[in-house]
Amino acid sequence: MTLKVNGPDEPVFLPQGFVWSAVKAGIKASGRTDAALAEAPLGASAAAVFTRNRVAAAPVVVGREHLAKSNGRVRAVLVNAGNANCATGKPGEKVASESCKAVGRALTAAAEFVVPSSTGIIGVPLPLEKLVAAVPELVAAKAATSEALEDFSRAIMTTDTRRKAASVEIKVGAKSIRVAGVAKGSGMIHPDMATMLVYIFTDVEAAPKSLQAALKKAVATSFNAISVDGDTSTNDTVLLLASGASGVKLTAAGVSKKFEAALHAVCASLAEQVIRDGEGAEHLVRLKIEQAKSVDEARVVARSIANSPLVKTAWAGCDPNWGRILSSVGKSGVDVDPSKVNIFIGPQRVCCRGMAHEFDAVAAHEYLKQPEYEIRVQLGRGKAKLEFLTCDLTVEYVHINADYST
Amino acid sequence: MTLKVNGPDEPVFLPQGFVWSAVKAGIKASGRTDAALAEAPLGASAAAVFTRNRVAAAPVVVGREHLAKSNGRVRAVLVNAGNANCATGKPGEKVASESCKAVGRALTAAAEFVVPSSTGIIGVPLPLEKLVAAVPELVAAKAATSEALEDFSRAIMTTDTRRKAASVEIKVGAKSIRVAGVAKGSGMIHPDMATMLVYIFTDVEAAPKSLQAALKKAVATSFNAISVDGDTSTNDTVLLLASGASGVKLTAAGVSKKFEAALHAVCASLAEQVIRDGEGAEHLVRLKIEQAKSVDEARVVARSIANSPLVKTAWAGCDPNWGRILSSVGKSGVDVDPSKVNIFIGPQRVCCRGMAHEFDAVAAHEYLKQPEYEIRVQLGRGKAKLEFLTCDLTVEYVHINADYST
Repeated sequence: MTLKVNGPDEPVFLPQGFVWSAVKAGIKASGRTDAALAEAPLGASAAAVFTRNRVAAAPVVVGREHLAKSNGRVRAVLVNAGNANCATGKPGEKVASESCKAVGRALTAAAEFVVPSSTGIIGVPLPLEKLVAAVPELVAAKAATSEALEDFSRAIMTTDTRRKAASVEIKVGAKSIRVAGVAKGSGMIHPDMATMLVYIFTDVEAAPKSLQAALKKAVATSFNAISVDGDTSTNDTVLLLASGASGVKLTAAGVSKKFEAALHAVCASLAEQVIRDGEGAEHLVRLKIEQAKSVDEARVVARSIANSPLVKTAWAGCDPNWGRILSSVGKSGVDVDPSKVNIFIGPQRVCCRGMAHEFDAVAAHEYLKQPEYEIRVQLGRGKAKLEFLTCDLTVEYVHINADYST
Repeated sequence: MTLKVNGPDEPVFLPQGFVWSAVKAGIKASGRTDAALAEAPLGASAAAVFTRNRVAAAPVVVGREHLAKSNGRVRAVLVNAGNANCATGKPGEKVASESCKAVGRALTAAAEFVVPSSTGIIGVPLPLEKLVAAVPELVAAKAATSEALEDFSRAIMTTDTRRKAASVEIKVGAKSIRVAGVAKGSGMIHPDMATMLVYIFTDVEAAPKSLQAALKKAVATSFNAISVDGDTSTNDTVLLLASGASGVKLTAAGVSKKFEAALHAVCASLAEQVIRDGEGAEHLVRLKIEQAKSVDEARVVARSIANSPLVKTAWAGCDPNWGRILSSVGKSGVDVDPSKVNIFIGPQRVCCRGMAHEFDAVAAHEYLKQPEYEIRVQLGRGKAKLEFLTCDLTVEYVHINADYST
């Protein structure tokens, strides 16, 4: 089944049962829209994947609590950009929960049905009064339109140079299910703004538990199969909301498989958009790990390669240096037998069974000059495989991240 | 006990029972000395720590085999620079063992008493004939002098800009023990030449097993407490040889503690010399991890900070960005409670119990402009601590490592 995924410049397949809005709350120094609301007026089932960083931002702590308390039911999401509300201690958690209360009051819902989300600078108190003052305007502006979702997707941007959106429609008999996602995250990461936030809306009808299983599966080979610099943000969040407004049940015959494909397609598109927006990145690298024992094992090897400064700088120089790739496979912790490892740069084999394989170095250098290319590593251990997206480490990355920011 | 450690520009405390030599074998493209021999004419007990990279170079594979076969007794070490003999398969292992045989024949010793060692380019066959042809000259040139050890230390250099050496003498009654070490490794690592090689010679009398325990302990808080870019070489080796020529037994009363201190002092000095020679590095960072549950835990946290591109680029920009440090603590995998974490940049506390702490940002920026400084992180978990040495990630690093090398 091939799915047509619409990107940010194409019409959106808009799921039913949601309204969106965005306003200027005065949190971003730029003065752009920085507060956004998504609401499921009749409620939605939710699934979420949060950062594994032990230093979790206040909205992540409060968001987890609310989802537990509400048994995975969500009425609204309140997002702000410009301030991460992280490393702000108990006062920061109070700001997150108070802002949810304000939204709850405006929508006549309990606070635990509201999920808070923040991105921006770390260690600076988030001004609650600004966020609370924006709520009435957010509620007044909400609309079930493509424009409103687009406004939402712009308000959550920080250093992103492009807005990220992906949507899919799948037919189920006479009915259809729509899955639409938006994301922020600009690959090569700006000072203090290391966060990836993703919100996915669908109108399938599903229990939170089934949604969570589907989301976990989709994330494993999309957002968990990309790396810019190996850093994990304190605020990373992927939230999936299902309104049920399509009238199609996830448990109906044949629906689950189609929905999972649609969800994965949206996640994979958004993940690729994040990598493509990498500031300073000059090359998008499709790292194909093959012959692994499991997808998890393939991911460990892919990350070891993708996070090696020596590999990433070789890519910046269009250098077909397979020795650094082989060495990164070896240090990954996976019990690889080097004499079974093959490495391909595009169409050319450069390493055969752990040894040099004659290749056209000039052609390989030319191949690596392309803005996007493929590197394939065979581990000789099993049948699992994973495509992992990453990018190079350029002088521009160091410039962006070394700029004195305080 | 304070130990006087002599560095490369000071007189060496020369251990008895060893001879050294170095010659030009024609392996380095530069034409400099590139083959070196160290011999213990009456034999030595040995201890070794090798790379944990699963892609181990041929000399590492053969070296491990020889040490096992000889029960930790060594007559000689043959080192070449300019070619790592890595990713060279079974033929590469044959080159390593044949070169040991050649040395063994010249010294009338069995091949298993010879340890091979290589550093340089990966994936290119090491020319055995050049190495074998150099052996008679190496044997003819060997001498028990400071000059010979200095020649040895120069021949093993690749992209190092300075020679690395450290030695210590400790008195035991009327006698004395000497520990002298030499190393190669240039921090920020040049294409294909990612190796750290260390050879330490001592005249204490000791069994291989006791030596191994002492070496393991010394390495844990010296060579295993430094990081340039998180990459682990395929050839990394630390080899300790004890001739026994001092007539002082390691098992004699009070000797073991003194020897361990001397060995650690030499290892710590060499480790610091490696970091200081970091190409492209502008700042030496003393990362002090305190209040950990164990030294191993402190090392995990230190590595997470030291290998974060976001932290390293902030250091390059002299940016007192403690949020990135806190986030790296959180993603280390150690079960840290953020509300117990304190961070200090030099004399100033910048993060208190996981939250922003008021500090003089201009003074902190000035402090971070120094070529060498201290950053202290308290975890609030226990009493263990570790000083970890690392450096910043500069534009120059990317330039050095992105240069097209094939």
